[in-house]
Amino acid sequence: MMLRQTLPRNTRSQGLVRQMAVMAKSLKYTQYGEPQDVLHLVETQLADPKDKQVLVKILAAPINPADINTIQGKYPVKPKFPAVAGNECVAEVICVGDKVKGLQPGEHVVPLTTGLGTWTTHAVYNEDQLLAVSKNVGLAEAATITVNPCTAYRMLRDFVKLSPGDTVIQNGANSAVGQAVHQLCRAWNLRSVGIVRDRPEIGELKQQLECLGATVVLTEAEVRTTDLFKSGTLKKPKLAFNCVGGKSATEVTRHLDNGGIMVTYGGMSREPVTVATGPLIFKDIAFRGFWMTRWSKENYDAPERLQMFKELCELVEQRKFVAPPHEMVPLDKFKEAASAALTFKGFTGKKYILNMS
Amino acid sequence: MMLRQTLPRNTRSQGLVRQMAVMAKSLKYTQYGEPQDVLHLVETQLADPKDKQVLVKILAAPINPADINTIQGKYPVKPKFPAVAGNECVAEVICVGDKVKGLQPGEHVVPLTTGLGTWTTHAVYNEDQLLAVSKNVGLAEAATITVNPCTAYRMLRDFVKLSPGDTVIQNGANSAVGQAVHQLCRAWNLRSVGIVRDRPEIGELKQQLECLGATVVLTEAEVRTTDLFKSGTLKKPKLAFNCVGGKSATEVTRHLDNGGIMVTYGGMSREPVTVATGPLIFKDIAFRGFWMTRWSKENYDAPERLQMFKELCELVEQRKFVAPPHEMVPLDKFKEAASAALTFKGFTGKKYILNMS
Repeated sequence: MMLRQTLPRNTRSQGLVRQMAVMAKSLKYTQYGEPQDVLHLVETQLADPKDKQVLVKILAAPINPADINTIQGKYPVKPKFPAVAGNECVAEVICVGDKVKGLQPGEHVVPLTTGLGTWTTHAVYNEDQLLAVSKNVGLAEAATITVNPCTAYRMLRDFVKLSPGDTVIQNGANSAVGQAVHQLCRAWNLRSVGIVRDRPEIGELKQQLECLGATVVLTEAEVRTTDLFKSGTLKKPKLAFNCVGGKSATEVTRHLDNGGIMVTYGGMSREPVTVATGPLIFKDIAFRGFWMTRWSKENYDAPERLQMFKELCELVEQRKFVAPPHEMVPLDKFKEAASAALTFKGFTGKKYILNMS
Repeated sequence: MMLRQTLPRNTRSQGLVRQMAVMAKSLKYTQYGEPQDVLHLVETQLADPKDKQVLVKILAAPINPADINTIQGKYPVKPKFPAVAGNECVAEVICVGDKVKGLQPGEHVVPLTTGLGTWTTHAVYNEDQLLAVSKNVGLAEAATITVNPCTAYRMLRDFVKLSPGDTVIQNGANSAVGQAVHQLCRAWNLRSVGIVRDRPEIGELKQQLECLGATVVLTEAEVRTTDLFKSGTLKKPKLAFNCVGGKSATEVTRHLDNGGIMVTYGGMSREPVTVATGPLIFKDIAFRGFWMTRWSKENYDAPERLQMFKELCELVEQRKFVAPPHEMVPLDKFKEAASAALTFKGFTGKKYILNMS
């Protein structure tokens, strides 16, 4: 990218917007397909921000499963072509239109809406699509805050009223959402039981998740025979999170307390959730789903939303909440990063974050 | 049974309770098993009602699936042995204890709680276990009002806010609950789509259910290809009732509107409900269960409960609500009735009502 003109430190405070011409390098696609096939790095000259527009320089933008699925055409959100890929980022405000009131050049921002196209060096967004975040929030945390931590936050808050000491159980406990759940449970004094697939380095993984706040981590085999709940060591969970489906979900359901809810937010096994009639009727178990994109749309301006971002950012600043293990990758290495993200079955491995800072 | 002493018309108004000795003939069991094997007609002398007790003569008591399952030991409610079978009835008050304030001899009552043991000629219950109902409510309707019509009423009221013109869809649409749903939908100006298994007399069954208030009745095959909802003939249902499970439930789910709820209250196919991940997450479909016994326990004294009985009885009195097709059977023919009830797969046939009047 090139900035054809050096920017004054604060254009708005001088009551005018300087003319400039920014060349953005963006990962664009004009048809669905595998990211390495259909994404192309394209240079575009951006117009100056007008009115409520904001020119930002993207600092970091993660590669999320939903981004890949969107590019593949497998996600319910369908972009207009040509589209810039990517939905999350942290960016620095470079320059603002003359009607922008709440943002200053130099501030860090994250997107309040999906589909903005964040895999780019620069972009022009509208002020109401952006939320300012403290620079004390690390780039990796800020770049990944709007999807997975928010999913964990809402699923813990919006389905069952939990009190300190209550138990939450989840499969896919090492997913990005899973890690966020463990950390929020620790911050909110909830017991967090995580279930993961068995693997050679299971001891290391358990330790890693317990460091994040998991009370206990069990393999799929161990959860079948555990007496953690029967023995009273932990209260029976009122809330379960499922991102796997199939047998894994069924096993989790068995441990739910009467009136408990299983919230599905993913289906990594590609198998449906099987719901026995007995628990539905006699134990009043409920099965719900959660999609952050819908919640955000329905609560765009809601005070709960700003409150959520405030709390999450505070936890990050207090070092009580960290981003998942990740690797920063330069934008021009996106093909390797997208391939690597795909080869981790179920995307539970390292998170790749495109680094444009 | 024999009444050893003729009763004064209203013992309470005379400020005293006459001594009497009533021999009750009851269907008792002391172990789980098939009803025809473990039920025995036993005579017991009943003590006079004291304090808040009420002596009743049972007029009619239905044979419900849950009664059979309880006798078989397959139901989550476990009786203390020896137990009198049966849970629903309509009875006539014969005589009341001296602290009974709200019931008069001669009144008709229905039980407010399950497990009272209603397959008997006479019984002594507590006043707070009984609800007076108008004698204008027919015996068959009164005897069967506390379980199936209440299940239909609550499922229509407590899960989704429905407006006149909204659509409800259900499988097992000719079950006792199904028939109640059709009738309540008609009374409340809701569209009621029923799904039934194909059978030789399908035309007759469809007509019968449409007479009760079903807007449309489809076979399992027809529901797979119907364009009733796509074409806009009917609004997409926000609420579905499932008493079958398996593929039948899956087909019903496909038609649910975004944010719709499937409520399971039975599992006649003995197959679980299969919940695809996509609809859970992206369509926000929810899967719940309903058990009248629990609701009644949790809302024993709730105004909503009395209001429900009031509304249902009014509908019966106005001839807008009828009992399912039934056959009155004398108490000493219970073995034949229990066997006949069992041979109707899924209990969707005729309802057998023990008649002691």
